[in-house]
Amino acid sequence: MRRKSFADMECPVARTLEAMGEWWTMMILREAFRGIRRFDGFQARLGIARNILARRLAALVAAGLLEKRPYSSRPPRHEYRLTEKGRDLFPVLVAMMEWGNRWAAPGAGPAVSLVDRATGRPLEPVIADAATGRRLDPRDVTLVPGPGAGRETLEALGLAPSAASAPSRGAASP
Amino acid sequence: MRRKSFADMECPVARTLEAMGEWWTMMILREAFRGIRRFDGFQARLGIARNILARRLAALVAAGLLEKRPYSSRPPRHEYRLTEKGRDLFPVLVAMMEWGNRWAAPGAGPAVSLVDRATGRPLEPVIADAATGRRLDPRDVTLVPGPGAGRETLEALGLAPSAASAPSRGAASP
Repeated sequence: MRRKSFADMECPVARTLEAMGEWWTMMILREAFRGIRRFDGFQARLGIARNILARRLAALVAAGLLEKRPYSSRPPRHEYRLTEKGRDLFPVLVAMMEWGNRWAAPGAGPAVSLVDRATGRPLEPVIADAATGRRLDPRDVTLVPGPGAGRETLEALGLAPSAASAPSRGAASP
Repeated sequence: MRRKSFADMECPVARTLEAMGEWWTMMILREAFRGIRRFDGFQARLGIARNILARRLAALVAAGLLEKRPYSSRPPRHEYRLTEKGRDLFPVLVAMMEWGNRWAAPGAGPAVSLVDRATGRPLEPVIADAATGRRLDPRDVTLVPGPGAGRETLEALGLAPSAASAPSRGAASP
């Protein structure tokens, strides 16, 4: 199926999906968070062809999520390190992991879980407000337009006339 | 590019990606979290062809992320509601939104941001431990095998012999 570009949408979720590029991005970043830095390390862990991996790593570097750093000059060799922009995807990865452990684990239970490195205590990751520590629930939050809000966003928030049906006056489904 | 199935991988991130199916899933769920329930509402908001939307909604129902509920018997009409399994993807969506606002916002700034529904106060979503409220940082956490861990997971965690290069003995990159 043809993939539509999300780059010109205002929605931050759409723009994140565009930056992530494709599912494989998260698999490569997963390994980077686990400490893998070198081409052959990624290749062995992910089991994909070298030319495909090379293209994907180049795309992640171009997107600013990984950076190439030399670790040897003779012979010239480099490794791939997470940038701050890449490291900031950690919450996305953790949220996916939690969902997978709850809803898509193998029959025997989760294959892997997250623990406190210092104590070994199991962690229960949730999305919380940094200021208050309060857990964020869909019913407790809402969206407001920011400085970059254009017509698309205002329409989505019901603050400008729109062709979209509001939930209360939605037309019949087929 | 051919998309490899992640369904038989043990990794919870891979299994979540498999369940989500494709990027468009998150766009449809985004609208569902905003209260859109009816076919024409999704269609107007997403601007995609009806046959494509119908196929995607059917896939989300088949995956158990949305459920069809009748709201009229004459004529027979139904709407699409988030299941508990679908609602549990909220943290993934919020984490993507936060990243997009930080790293991929339009020039003028974020188009939309999350606020407390009751007070209107801006929220700063982070991934935190539910038990302690402590913010989870990649450097503070590690992975341990769970009951569903097989060879794939044990190898990934360095607890079984593997063909993969460990970071410290990674081979040269090309």
